[in-house]
Amino acid sequence: MTTPLRLGIAGLGTVGIGVVKIVRRNAALLALRAGRTIEIVAVCARDKGKERGVSLASCAWEDDPVALARRSDIDVFVELMGGSDGPAKAATEAAIEAGKDVVTANKAMLAHHGQALAEAAEARGHVIRFEAAVAGGIPVMKALTESLAGNEITRVMGVMNGTCNYILTRMQNAGLPYEEVFEEARRLGYLEADPTLDVGGIDAGHKLALLASVAFGTRVSFDGVRIEGIERITIEDIRRAADMGFRIKLLGVARMTARGLEQRMSPCLVPASSPLGQLEGGTNMVVLEGDSVGQIVLRGPGAGEGPTASAVMSDIIDIARGTRLPTFGQPATTLKTARPARVSAPAPYYLRMKLQDKPGALARIATVLGEAGVSIDRMRQYGHEDTTAPVLIVTHKTTRDALDKALPGFSRTGVLAAPPVALRIETV
Amino acid sequence: MTTPLRLGIAGLGTVGIGVVKIVRRNAALLALRAGRTIEIVAVCARDKGKERGVSLASCAWEDDPVALARRSDIDVFVELMGGSDGPAKAATEAAIEAGKDVVTANKAMLAHHGQALAEAAEARGHVIRFEAAVAGGIPVMKALTESLAGNEITRVMGVMNGTCNYILTRMQNAGLPYEEVFEEARRLGYLEADPTLDVGGIDAGHKLALLASVAFGTRVSFDGVRIEGIERITIEDIRRAADMGFRIKLLGVARMTARGLEQRMSPCLVPASSPLGQLEGGTNMVVLEGDSVGQIVLRGPGAGEGPTASAVMSDIIDIARGTRLPTFGQPATTLKTARPARVSAPAPYYLRMKLQDKPGALARIATVLGEAGVSIDRMRQYGHEDTTAPVLIVTHKTTRDALDKALPGFSRTGVLAAPPVALRIETV
Repeated sequence: MTTPLRLGIAGLGTVGIGVVKIVRRNAALLALRAGRTIEIVAVCARDKGKERGVSLASCAWEDDPVALARRSDIDVFVELMGGSDGPAKAATEAAIEAGKDVVTANKAMLAHHGQALAEAAEARGHVIRFEAAVAGGIPVMKALTESLAGNEITRVMGVMNGTCNYILTRMQNAGLPYEEVFEEARRLGYLEADPTLDVGGIDAGHKLALLASVAFGTRVSFDGVRIEGIERITIEDIRRAADMGFRIKLLGVARMTARGLEQRMSPCLVPASSPLGQLEGGTNMVVLEGDSVGQIVLRGPGAGEGPTASAVMSDIIDIARGTRLPTFGQPATTLKTARPARVSAPAPYYLRMKLQDKPGALARIATVLGEAGVSIDRMRQYGHEDTTAPVLIVTHKTTRDALDKALPGFSRTGVLAAPPVALRIETV
Repeated sequence: MTTPLRLGIAGLGTVGIGVVKIVRRNAALLALRAGRTIEIVAVCARDKGKERGVSLASCAWEDDPVALARRSDIDVFVELMGGSDGPAKAATEAAIEAGKDVVTANKAMLAHHGQALAEAAEARGHVIRFEAAVAGGIPVMKALTESLAGNEITRVMGVMNGTCNYILTRMQNAGLPYEEVFEEARRLGYLEADPTLDVGGIDAGHKLALLASVAFGTRVSFDGVRIEGIERITIEDIRRAADMGFRIKLLGVARMTARGLEQRMSPCLVPASSPLGQLEGGTNMVVLEGDSVGQIVLRGPGAGEGPTASAVMSDIIDIARGTRLPTFGQPATTLKTARPARVSAPAPYYLRMKLQDKPGALARIATVLGEAGVSIDRMRQYGHEDTTAPVLIVTHKTTRDALDKALPGFSRTGVLAAPPVALRIETV
């Protein structure tokens, strides 16, 4: 294979430009490692005139990503536009139809359409690779699909949204309220155009669904991910968690159980001294557990030009070297449909609520918990704020089911001044 | 590729039996992921009659690994015997000559003969894979060779000998002297037959040399690794390091500098709260740094049946899937010969020495340091033991060169009661 590998890159944002820079800067190294040169033949983006800091004069320009995907002079369609539907999906479908391999960083598209796209590509003998879609520069898809391929995977978990982790650690370290740090993150350009994708846990949920598919040989099931965002975490939650020796992290966990596939992405309390608890800023961490290997932990930058482009390059170099694997590690047609299971492993929970200043309010809450079979480890009522009183409860180990039974009961007591916040305490 | 992949396994120790168990237990999963079945056709070990807990009745038996390697009914020769020369090398050479791919966990053989073996295999179009040779179950060779292939690697470092880390953390946690924990490790079967391979830093040095080769595109240069073992670390060193907020770890670092390739494997002080400092027992950690990705940290079990067999299976599955890469990530004939460089980055050092009870002894030591240009941050003389006095010095940042100039000077003072111990303080 001494012919060049010819790329068409759709999307010239941070990641796209990062890929162009690597292909240029490390050209000789890439050729040595891949056994052939890697060339950018054509590119496509919304605004041709925009200054991007790199010269694209040697590349053909396409205004339409579908036209780029169909060009006869490209081997690999590199999709870095983003968005679950629209141009990204249309162009990816066109590339597959035109007989191209595809490299993408698009978690949303794969979380929603991964099965159909993989089946289409595999029917034609083409590959779709997406290392950059999950945990940025951390080589987690390769670790799971290839390095741990001899293992039955028992659990995958991780902190996979750098923006949420930035917000939570910044609140912790600077003692700032959520709203203020959220605005700061927006100014710094850390948030997606629709910030709900980040702080609502959706982006991280997409990533978890992709990991779970490869881990358990199941069709991607984004709808099966129980998602809670970080929007309701207050600086008081962070302070109280810290007082008890915990940090709050947006943590994803996927497990295959006898009752089905459990997938959850939610803010949890983790021990401050644990590797997850020590994770600062935009750094991501993924934990992979298999029946032979035990536990592997991977840590690295979850976003940014260099790290994400590095992951895209990994897929491109694999294709240049002739490595050809099914999208999800086994043929897409053999992936099973997983039954979604509710969270089953018991854990202690942190509950924070605001009670109206009525006699017996605390007793009513305690009664509801008792009736749901949830026993209380610690309970503390703080000084009254105006006419309400903040209450913090740490339960003994209980199930999410028992807790979900209790939560509506709280409302029925008529003493809640605001909906309660319930956070799982993970002592991993 | 629907024909089975046929293995011949030489060596049925812990790892060999681990591989047999995975191939049996996860047969269906492996077939799904690899696209073909994986079969163990023939095996070889020293003692045919030994009870190994698995039935080998379905496999042909060979007494001679060379005969196994040459069998016409195997595709892959799996070398799990160990030893840099002797039967392992003879059988690997025979396998290459007979047109087989090779999977091995043998760091010693590759550290010494990797270049010749890789050239021989690549000339015939065959592959040698060795994920299990470095850091057990951690997928570090794949991360470096494939996931980070778009990067110019700037540094690799890690704790890669689980036995040494077990000894050091056990000394720390139980407050036991080196000799006692060494004997305990021997009883537990954690030590190599020749324990110098472990505690002398040689095994970890082999691993570092392999990592450096792939990282920097250079021929494996085990002779270029500056190696110090942990044999001279005392419980006092561990206690005094802890008092200053450090842990002692056998740490390997490889860097390409303008002056050449720096490779060192030596006990160092690292911050107790750092990821490296928190590494307990047999767990390994490898840090990879590249120009695009920044820093990636991988943590996992560095030895043991399951984890090491998991890494061996990763290589076997790659071969079954048709993935074929050069042994060291680029053709062996293109690897450069690296000029070995001395350790250049300045760091503070921890010095421990025993002085004879003579007037002015401490002053003479301080003078020698001053003359070598090494300035003292902290110095403490402890209460006299018999006729000698233990002295602990922490220097300001200095170079290893300056320190190496000072060390012979200490001897010439005539006040040392024992050779000094010098440990680098890494604040990574």
